[in-house]
Order: sequence, then C-alpha cells, then structure tokens
Amino acid sequence: MDVLISEVGPRDGLQSIDRIMPTAAKKIWIDMAWAAGLTEVEVGSFVPAKLLPQLADTAEVVAYSARIPGLTVAALVPNARGATDAIAAGAHKITLPLSCSESHSLANLRRTHAQVIEDARLIAAAIRDLPEGRRPHFEGSLSTAFGCTIEGVVPQAKVVELAEALMAAGCDEVGLADTTGYADPASVKSMIAAIWSAVGGDALTGIHVHNTRGLGLANVLAAFDAGLTTFDSSLGGLGGCPFAPGASGNIVTEDLVFMFEAMGVRTGVDLDKLIAVREFVQKTLGDEPLYGFTPLAGLPLGFVSTTQNTDIKQGAWA
Amino acid sequence: MDVLISEVGPRDGLQSIDRIMPTAAKKIWIDMAWAAGLTEVEVGSFVPAKLLPQLADTAEVVAYSARIPGLTVAALVPNARGATDAIAAGAHKITLPLSCSESHSLANLRRTHAQVIEDARLIAAAIRDLPEGRRPHFEGSLSTAFGCTIEGVVPQAKVVELAEALMAAGCDEVGLADTTGYADPASVKSMIAAIWSAVGGDALTGIHVHNTRGLGLANVLAAFDAGLTTFDSSLGGLGGCPFAPGASGNIVTEDLVFMFEAMGVRTGVDLDKLIAVREFVQKTLGDEPLYGFTPLAGLPLGFVSTTQNTDIKQGAWA
Repeated sequence: MDVLISEVGPRDGLQSIDRIMPTAAKKIWIDMAWAAGLTEVEVGSFVPAKLLPQLADTAEVVAYSARIPGLTVAALVPNARGATDAIAAGAHKITLPLSCSESHSLANLRRTHAQVIEDARLIAAAIRDLPEGRRPHFEGSLSTAFGCTIEGVVPQAKVVELAEALMAAGCDEVGLADTTGYADPASVKSMIAAIWSAVGGDALTGIHVHNTRGLGLANVLAAFDAGLTTFDSSLGGLGGCPFAPGASGNIVTEDLVFMFEAMGVRTGVDLDKLIAVREFVQKTLGDEPLYGFTPLAGLPLGFVSTTQNTDIKQGAWA
Repeated sequence: MDVLISEVGPRDGLQSIDRIMPTAAKKIWIDMAWAAGLTEVEVGSFVPAKLLPQLADTAEVVAYSARIPGLTVAALVPNARGATDAIAAGAHKITLPLSCSESHSLANLRRTHAQVIEDARLIAAAIRDLPEGRRPHFEGSLSTAFGCTIEGVVPQAKVVELAEALMAAGCDEVGLADTTGYADPASVKSMIAAIWSAVGGDALTGIHVHNTRGLGLANVLAAFDAGLTTFDSSLGGLGGCPFAPGASGNIVTEDLVFMFEAMGVRTGVDLDKLIAVREFVQKTLGDEPLYGFTPLAGLPLGFVSTTQNTDIKQGAWA
C-alpha cells in the first residue's frame, strides 16, 4: 500500500450520534471493513460509559477485533486510566489526544497541557513495562492543531512545542488533528514541515482532517504531497453532519479512497466492498444520515482502481 | 489578484434547474457579485430559448452586465450563430464547448469534432473582422476532457489533439472542463502538463471542475499547483445537486474562495459580501437547494482573508 486509510467511524462517527449501535453490529462492521481491505480501524474510546454510552462496549469490541488477523486495532484514551483499560483489552494502537488550545483542553477535558503530558509519560512507562511484542503503538494526537473555536488560530510554535513535549514524554509518534475544520492546504503543509524539522519525519506520519468547510480532501492532498501517509476518515462521513453546528464533519472514507485510487495511489481498499460496508451501516443505523459523493455518483465508467489493477496508472502521481 | 474566480452560476447553475429566474433578479445577482469582488461572470448561453428557457434573456443580461465597469462578461455559445448573437450583445468573452468525447458530442449536440472546429474557425474569423477594442476573448472549452459517461476515459492524446485544433482554428485560449466529475488530482496535473507542452502555457490558464465525486477542491488545488490561475465555480453550487443523477455538481464559489483566502492566495472576493449574494439568490429561488460547507459552518474565529489583509499570510503558499 502507498497510503494507510485509518477508519475512525466506529469511534469518531458513533460517538457523534445519539443512536447506540449494538455491539454485534459493530463487530460485523469491523469484520466487513477488514474484508474490504481496511487494515486499521479505531474501534472505540476508553471513556466512562456515563459520558459516552455509545462506546460503553469498547473493551469488548477491542478484544474481538484484536483477533482479526492483520488488523491494527486502535483506541482512543482520555488519560492513563483509559490506557490501562486499552492495554488490558489488547489494543494495538493507543491514541491520547492533547488539545493544542489550552482553553479548549480546560473547557472540554478540564485538564492543562502539563497534566495531559504527565499522563503521556505514565502511559509510555506502562507500555515499556510490557513484554516485547505486547506493546501497543502509542500516539499523541495534537488536536485543535489548526485553531479552535475558543482561541482562534493556535500559534504553530505552540503546536511544535507540544509535539516535542509528547515525544519527550515517550510517545512513539504524534498525529495532527484538525478538530475544528480550521486547516487549509497551506497551513497543513507548513505545519508538517515545522513539526518534521523539530521531531523528525518518522515522528509524524498521519493526519485527521475534518470537512467542516469543505476543504477536507484538499487538505489530505496537501498532506500527502508533503509526505504524510496515514489518513483518518469515517465511513459515510458518519458523525459529520455539516448542517448541525458543532458537528465534527469527518471526511468520507469512500471519497478519500476513490481520490487516491483514481490518482494511482494504492490504498488496498476494494471500493465495491466498501460500498457494501456502507450499506450495512446505513441499514443498522436506520435514518441516521450518511454523507459522501462517490457512493451517490457511482464510479466513473470503466474505472479500474489502482489497488485492483497494478498495471493501470500505478505511479501516475509523482 | 493571485487567482481569478469565474462565477458561472447565472449560466451553468440556472440552466440546471427548472425554475426560471426573472431577468431583474439576474441583474441584481450580477451587480452584487461584482460588488463582492468577482470580476468575471458567465451570465448566460446563446442557445435557442426553446431548449433552455431559463436563459432566454441572455442577450439582455449580457448587454446590461457589459455596462458594469471592470466586469468581464462571459457567455457560452453552442455554435457560430450563437457567437454572432453574443458579439452583438457585447460579451467580453465567448466560450465554445467542444466535447472531447465525440460520442458525447454527437449525442448531446449532434455534431462531430470537425463541425465544432469549423465553427471555431468561423467565430475566430468573425472576431478578427471586428474593430480593435471590440473583439471578445475567444475560448474553446475542452469539455468531458477527463472522460464521459458514454466512452469512459478520453485518451489524453485526443484532448491534446483537440486543444491544438482549437488553437489552430483561431481560439485565443482553451479551457479544461471536467463535465462529468471524472478528474482526479493526478489526471488534472498530467493533463495540464500535456496541453502546455503542445500549445504553450498562455493557451491554457483555466479549469472548470465539478464536485460530482467530492474531489472538486482537491482538483482545483492540483490545477493551481500546476500553474492554472482561473477557476470556475457556481454560487451555492447551484445546479449541482449531488443527489440527482446527471446533475452537474458544480463546485461552490463560497468554499473555493474560502480555500484560497485561507491559503494566502488573493481572490479579490469579500466573503461576507459573497454570503450576502448567496442569501439574495436563495431568497429569489425559494426552496431550490444551495450547497456549500463554509456558509453553514461560518468563518473560523479570528479569520482574516488574504484579500482583506495583505499583511497576513500573503505568500504563505509557495
């Protein structure tokens, strides 16, 4: 694969809607996603069930998914306590979000930057204590990296400083997250260059962008151009209603995969099977709206994806 | 200005909806668009009123708009007869579409490539006969350049050959149009390079992309990166319902302007005034759906557009 599409629908999508998907349906979704060629799925978040009842079954879903061969099972953790649960459940990848806007961090999580970084240190230490081969990959996610609705633009120097702090605390990697849809192609490129020059190219490979202002795929393209290779997206843009204020506006996995496959960039994902996953999720969620253009327009006449035909357009993007 | 946004809503938008906008409202729309900083508007199409009653008043709208100082008034013409009318009405720019897929050309216009190119020759000759200063700019538009729903992908060599033929016939310029939403960032870049190497960089400066599969702004970004500077879009994505099969799926002027302004690329357009134009058009069209993300999400907190503040982010994109 040339890029890794990390499916976040079961976590970021489901946490943003009121309806609670039954555990059995989540398992089928993840099975189908894997069968469609998605090799990384963020399946839940280890937050108190009282706060997010939609994700109360995360431990069970993680344990189930970890048995699927070749699937990287990712989980979000709000703190060290959540990380302990994620490790116990067998998550392969643990993501701790750090809101670059401290006002946002205080308002949403009631925690300062220093407190979150201390948690990163505790989590990294706990992971180091595990036997080799059982250690999950530990990512610090730089959320609101491009600005927030309380502070406006977050200075790039602050984001770089936090990236350095997370790496110093023992994260394997940092990730960029445009939680508020404030990023644009220029700020994406410039932010990647700044973080790379501070912590090195291996320490930042992925980005999580939203489509809040319609720039989602353009921002992905800019990030890909700059050299990132992992891109988060949500099946059907689940949880991303652009018509509801405050909605996250996740980019749509189907459109993201189509873009790369059309460009000659291999995602490993089978678009027809991906549409079947969408249909399953839509049926399960009833009238919950799904988004995306490619599923409605269909594939272009005669379209052959790069993943399915290595003779065609391979390396067209250079 | 760093880029030129060419507003095609009054033509491409209105021709795609059933409702007929009153001439007086079109004039106000164009006035407001100009006041918002848009300096080029495609105001209509010189086709028989029987075929497109929505645009039956094109001659009057062109004549009115041509009196607005500093506004480039563009009009589509299907053939030499339409060009004569467009010249008589005072259009500054005349666009003759040539469908790169000959099957599409035959099915939609009942004309072969040779017939359209012969018309281009006639139009160019008629323009040469006009007194200097009265000669409109003449563009040959390479429609279905990235593929069509009858033939599938159109070979790049065919598009290049038609670009050469249009320039040889006397066009001032050719334009790329992804009529069917088949383009992707890689094919956009590769097509631009191929056409430039055949007819020179001055002969292709603009592109008209659709958002049929959600890649509209990513394709614009690729084209901008490759060096194009003129981008068509439609206010509110008018005429571009992605939920109706066959709809054109125009990209949304508001999102396009936001993208460039956020990137540090000056469009000359005032986003607040643009939103006011949208509100006027929405009121005029009643329940006709408009699209776009930026108008619903609003601008980021503390956002200063590049056009309005030359100190901020100017040249950020390089």
